[in-house]
Formats: sequence, structure tokens, C-alpha cells
Amino acid sequence: MDYDIIVIGAGPGGYVAAEKAAKAGKKTLLVERERLGGICLNWGCIPTKALLKSAQAYHYAAKAEEYGVSIAGEVKPDFNKMVQRSRNVADMMNKGVEFLMNKSGVQVLKGTASLTADKKVEVMTESGEKQLFSAEHIILAVGASSRQLPSLPQDGKYIIGYRQAMTLEQQPKSMVVVGSGAIGSEFAHFYQSIGTQVTLVEFMPTIVPNEDKETASTLQRCFKKNGMKVYTSTSVEKVDVKDGKCVVTLSGKKTETVECDVVLSAVGVQTNLQGLGLEQAGIQTEKGKVIVDDYYRTNVQGVYAIGDIVHGPALAHVASAEATVCVENILGKDPQKIDYSNIPGCTYTTPEIASVGLTEDKAKEQGFDVKTGKFMFMASGKATAAGNRDGFVKIVADRATDKILGCSMIGDNVTEMIEEIVVARQNNLTVKQILSAVHPHPTMSEGVMEALAAMQ
Amino acid sequence: MDYDIIVIGAGPGGYVAAEKAAKAGKKTLLVERERLGGICLNWGCIPTKALLKSAQAYHYAAKAEEYGVSIAGEVKPDFNKMVQRSRNVADMMNKGVEFLMNKSGVQVLKGTASLTADKKVEVMTESGEKQLFSAEHIILAVGASSRQLPSLPQDGKYIIGYRQAMTLEQQPKSMVVVGSGAIGSEFAHFYQSIGTQVTLVEFMPTIVPNEDKETASTLQRCFKKNGMKVYTSTSVEKVDVKDGKCVVTLSGKKTETVECDVVLSAVGVQTNLQGLGLEQAGIQTEKGKVIVDDYYRTNVQGVYAIGDIVHGPALAHVASAEATVCVENILGKDPQKIDYSNIPGCTYTTPEIASVGLTEDKAKEQGFDVKTGKFMFMASGKATAAGNRDGFVKIVADRATDKILGCSMIGDNVTEMIEEIVVARQNNLTVKQILSAVHPHPTMSEGVMEALAAMQ
Repeated sequence: MDYDIIVIGAGPGGYVAAEKAAKAGKKTLLVERERLGGICLNWGCIPTKALLKSAQAYHYAAKAEEYGVSIAGEVKPDFNKMVQRSRNVADMMNKGVEFLMNKSGVQVLKGTASLTADKKVEVMTESGEKQLFSAEHIILAVGASSRQLPSLPQDGKYIIGYRQAMTLEQQPKSMVVVGSGAIGSEFAHFYQSIGTQVTLVEFMPTIVPNEDKETASTLQRCFKKNGMKVYTSTSVEKVDVKDGKCVVTLSGKKTETVECDVVLSAVGVQTNLQGLGLEQAGIQTEKGKVIVDDYYRTNVQGVYAIGDIVHGPALAHVASAEATVCVENILGKDPQKIDYSNIPGCTYTTPEIASVGLTEDKAKEQGFDVKTGKFMFMASGKATAAGNRDGFVKIVADRATDKILGCSMIGDNVTEMIEEIVVARQNNLTVKQILSAVHPHPTMSEGVMEALAAMQ
Repeated sequence: MDYDIIVIGAGPGGYVAAEKAAKAGKKTLLVERERLGGICLNWGCIPTKALLKSAQAYHYAAKAEEYGVSIAGEVKPDFNKMVQRSRNVADMMNKGVEFLMNKSGVQVLKGTASLTADKKVEVMTESGEKQLFSAEHIILAVGASSRQLPSLPQDGKYIIGYRQAMTLEQQPKSMVVVGSGAIGSEFAHFYQSIGTQVTLVEFMPTIVPNEDKETASTLQRCFKKNGMKVYTSTSVEKVDVKDGKCVVTLSGKKTETVECDVVLSAVGVQTNLQGLGLEQAGIQTEKGKVIVDDYYRTNVQGVYAIGDIVHGPALAHVASAEATVCVENILGKDPQKIDYSNIPGCTYTTPEIASVGLTEDKAKEQGFDVKTGKFMFMASGKATAAGNRDGFVKIVADRATDKILGCSMIGDNVTEMIEEIVVARQNNLTVKQILSAVHPHPTMSEGVMEALAAMQ
């Protein structure tokens, strides 16, 4: 065997797997066709957070007067500088992963990998050379790409995906964003904040459709206050390009058209399984995902799959957690299986959204006798001092057991607060047990305490 | 009896106690000599957070270029507007407490209360009228004020306390801040950030002396980077006023003098027990604090004391927690006693500090076989995207039990992150049990996970 472990794909699943394997003394090869860090680091979580931070800095500068700061001249977003800063941030993190791989002894090979019929890894390197490697364990972590809809064929110019959306050469004056999940909502917020007229279109009855309904309506109200146009229960019939403009035909309560410079398709992701040689290696898939067990073993011995290409939410932190469980299992440790009912989700709009577990509606659907507690940040001293009073904490618990079924938060910095609830749920703590911990004043996290106390 | 419960003092201890009592159907009187909300809301936690938010907005405006925002003219802090905004925030919260008292049926009386020998409450009202009330239960929650040092006699003009520091008529060009606890450090940071030349003087060998040493040195480095002058192991001998300037004589490694416009004395607080009639009512005190048991009962039956006037840290959230335990006990519920070894503390400088439990040094002093894990935010994608990479998470655990002895955090938004550790400690969770919870990406709170994982 050439290697103990070969990892294909260097995103937050793959590079974490490779690092853990190499640190445990395994001879490890990490194959990546693009850049270390994958989509998350280069084209996803990280560079979008940089753009959103720029939007926030612009917001503070533009609203500086309200905070007692006087600015003599005009405040303007410099789109190209924002994009450049975002790329610099991605580059820094990319170099960080390179350093990490180096330090932990992971060998890195740039190229496109596929599985052969006899369970080897064939790599077409950047120089066009084919190399063949064997390994005791092969971990597939090839991730996903922007999903293509027939009605929204991405041409990279008029109809774009998230990658183009973060590197446009100039700021569009107007944009239609199709899909209001985390990606769509974050881009919609970013562009609207810096002065692009954004129209957000969602097929489902509420935006951020996986979130609690009140969360969704709060976000929608904030979006609209900011000048965004929002359509729900609406689909895109087609996009025509006329005189360099997109004409988007929407079909909702009525049919209408919206003109814009560019259309962003943010209707989800599709797994990168094509060309990976799964069929010839005999690896079973279902609905575009690789079938794995609780330790990420495929049906072929010695081949594993983690991240977006397996069941569960396509989130960076899920991929990293799966990498840990997968490698620890290979190493003969006894890792704890991932509890997929306790995965936090975050959306970095203003206000931010963070949630975990069941929404109130879903908990009721599932037949629980629920009790809910809610705290509005309008009553929070910290939120008032910060001048950001939108949002709330809402917690849903099971009356029978006093355990938390789910939590929905929307507000300033809530993405840093959700973990209290995740840890509590993971360890079966009751509402009373969480309430026994003193929460510091003045924080937004007091909202958790207040919501729990309101439930009594 | 005129009332079931009389609460004296309407700070975060008193108003919470009154609200809980009234909500439970008790006829409740709340007596306050100044404003509802006490120091915390009117002269402490809340208005200072408003000032610090203004400093942050100024920072973003001044550094806007780095985030891709172009500003044509000069960016200047408008000190008076910042102070006005801070007062408005305090007013809003004050009205919120008024509303809350009203809604929950608490009767509020403005006046100065004291205990009589026969356990009644005498109130000198604002109109100068004396009223006498009886109650089954009397809760003392009169709080504390800025401590006066003989070498720093506060005159309200040259040598000031925290109250004057948040309502100065004009921004001083230079300021000496004596004491670097939370209050001193926050004011030092605020004034330095908006352009006052601040000299921070601390008697102990490190600033924020209750915090972890590395936390202290990180904050000191950030303070100095911002232009602040910092003296540790230094005391103030005296302050002379000459030609409208303060000349502060410092005694440390050597004796030197610093000239400034104003000196802020932030050397702690002293309890407001004078004139409360404790002696005539026969209530025992020790070292300026009222002696109470775990349910905040004094030695006199039916008289209770909570907040800054009893043992434990003088923090708003501790006072509120004590109010809850005190009233629930009166109501015959079975409240859980407060665990004073698990009280989080927060300092809202930039970077922020949050900590709970033992520092590494104290844990070693107490004889624990400690293991520590640390994560530097320099390696965090969220911190890098935000452009705020200072700080770290450091966790100290007991090797024997895998339980967390303490946690020190310094960085962006860490005050919203500490509660994960507080809840975990409160419920005796092990490092492994916290690590089994997935942390969302990209957040600063991943730093907790990374620090715990680094401990393995």
C-alpha cells in the first residue's frame, strides 16, 4: 500500500480528516483539484462572512451619526475593495490550511481523483499526468456545487451562482436572488445593504423556509425595512436577456416580470459525484448521495464518504464532525455517533439567525405536548445599548420531560449564543438545569435565560 | 401588615425580587430613592455599553477603508452626542422597568427607606414626608457606590467616579484611570478609543487582576497598540491640582508624575449601608456586608439582604440570581442555591473578556492536576473575516475528572460565548461531553471546541 489513508477533497470534511489521520501517525495523502479549504473556505462560509462584515462596517459608517460620530463627507461602499478584502481573507485562511497540513505531515497532491475498479485512486495531476495510488482507507469528501435548475441555466454572467456572486467585477444596480436559504438570504442582505436593489424570490410560503415562522417573518420585516423586495410562494418561470438586462418572469399569486442586472440562483447544492468512479468501484448511492453507516463506511470495505455527499445537512461543521468520527473509527477509537437532530444552523444576515432542533410547528406536528418561552430583544439592555433591538429567542420544550426540543434565535450575535442550547440538548439537560446557571449581564445571551424562565 | 413584601432598592436585585413577588400574588412595595433600575441600569452596565458601542461605531467609521468603505471627509467622535445617546438608552431601560413594575402589580414609592427598631420600614418621601410601613418580609437591596480612597478624594470635577465619567460636559484631552477592573478598563478603553490620552494605573502586577495572566497581557497589548499608557504594580500617591490640571504622583518602580485633565477613580465599590437603620433593627454585618445564609435571610427573622451588600461578587447578574432564590424561598418553593464558584464575569473592552471558574494559576495553587487547552483566534475564519483576530479561548480542566475548572476568553463577542461553559460546569459535564456537541461554523464559539480538543 502506498498510503494508510487517502482523502479525496480538501474542504472542511477532507482536510480535517487528513489532519487527524496524519497526527495519529498515519501516512496520509490529501488530493484536491482546486484549493485547500474547499468551498467553505474559498467560496463559501469564510469569504461571505468577510463581505457581510464589510456591509456591517458600511452600516456603522452610514449610521455613524446615530452613535454620536460625525462624518463630514459622503460614505460610499467600494464594492471592488470589499471583494478584494474578501479574497484576501480567503487567501489567508487557505494558507492557514496549507500550513496545518504541512505541520501535521499530510502529503498534498493537486489533481482530480477518481476510484478505479480495483479500489485504487487515480489522480490526474495539474500537469496532465496520471498517477495511481493504493491505500488501506480511502475517504471521499468531494463536496457539492451550486444546483442548476432548468429554468435558471447559470451562464456566469446574467444568471450566476454563489461563486460569481462573490467576485463580480462591478456592483450590480439590481439583482434578483432566487432561493432564500442561508446562501440566498446572506447575498440578498449583503447586496441590498450596499445599495443594490435586491428582489428575493422564495418558492415556499416563508423565507428561510427551514426556520421558525416568526423568525422568517422577523427577517422579512428587516429585509423590507432595508428596501428589499421579497416574494414568497413564488417561482421563477424563466429569465430572458434583453439589451443586457435580465427580465425575470415570476409566477406567484399573479404572474409578473422583474428587470435586473443579474440573477443569482441560490436554490441549493448538488453533490460532486460525477467522474468520481463510484460505479466502477461498486459504491452504492441513493438520490445523488453516497450510502454510509454511522461511521461513514460505504458498502465497499475501506472506502468512506463524509460531508455534503452523504445524508444530513450540507454544512461545513457537519462535514468536520463526520471527518472526526470517520477517522477516529478507523483509528480504532470509539467515537460518539453524530446526533443529526442536534445540528445548529446559522444565517449571517442582519439580524443573524441561529437555530437547532425542532421548530414549534414541527414539534407540535410530531405530537409533543410543547411549552414555549420567548424573549424579545426589544426588552434587552444590551440590544438597546447596541442599537440593534430586532429579534428574539424562542425555546420549545417537551412538557413531559422538561427537555428542550428546539430553539430559534434571531438577533445581534445569536450565532455565538446557540451553542449553550446545543450542549444542553446533547447532554439531555432540562430547562430547570439550564436555568440553574447564572447568565452574565448585560448580554444578548440573557435572552436564553429569560425565554426559559418565561416557560415556567 | 401593610404589605406582604417590601423591597428597598430598585436595582437588578430589588426590581427582580419585587417583580417575582408581585407576580406570585404578593402585595409588594418597592422603595427607591433615585431611579428604577439602580446603578446597573442608570449609571453602570447599560449606559457604559452604549458608550462602548459608540466607540465601536467610531472605530468602524475610522477604519472603514480597511473594510472597503470610502469616506470623503473627516470622521470625528461627537462626545456630547455619545453621552446623550447613552443617557437616552438608560432612560429607555428605566421606562422599561417602570412598565414592568406596573404590569406585574408592584407598588413603587420614591423615597429613602430605613429600618426601625420594631422592624418597620420608614420612608422619607421625595416631598419630605415620613411614612411608616409594616411587612411580613423586608428585602434589603440597596447596592453600592464608588469607593473613596483617601489618596483619591472624589470632588466630582478633577477626581471623579464612574457616574461623572459617563456624563462629563466635555471630552477630556487626557485622563488618568486608577484601577483596571471591569469599570476602570472599560472607561479607559472608551476614552482612549475616542481620542483622549488615557493613562491606566493598576496597583496589582497585571491589569484586570482577577483574570488569567495571558488574558491580562493580551488586553494590555491591545490597549498599548491603541495608544494607551499602562502602569502596573503602581499606586497613586496623591493628586495635586495646578492651573486647572491634575498632577498625579505615581509610585511604582520609580516615582513619577503624570499631568491630565481629569482622574477617574475606579478602585471598587463600597456598600450603601449607612443610614439604613441596620443597627437599631439588630441586623448583623461583617466588613461592610450584611451577613446572610444561603437563602439571603439575615439574623432577624423576616429581613433579607441581596446584591452588592452581601458576600459574593458585586455583579448585576448575581444580584438578580439572589433575588430569585430569596423570593422563591419566601414563596415556599425549593430554589437551587447559587454556586458562587460558577459566576461568569464580563469586561466589555475591545477585545472583550469573559471568564468563569478558576484561572490556570489558581487551579494549580489549589492543587489540581490540570490540563489546559487553548485556541488562538488568529486561526479562526470568523475572526479573520471580521478583521478582529486578537485573543483566545483557554480552558482549564481537572485531569482526574475531565471536568472544567475554569475558562478564560478574550476576543470579539466572547461575552456571548461564555454561557456554554457556565451551563456545562453547572451540570458537571466533562470535556468529552461538551465536545460531543457540534459547534456551528464559522463562529468564534468554535474556539471553545478547538480549545477543548487541543486538551485531549
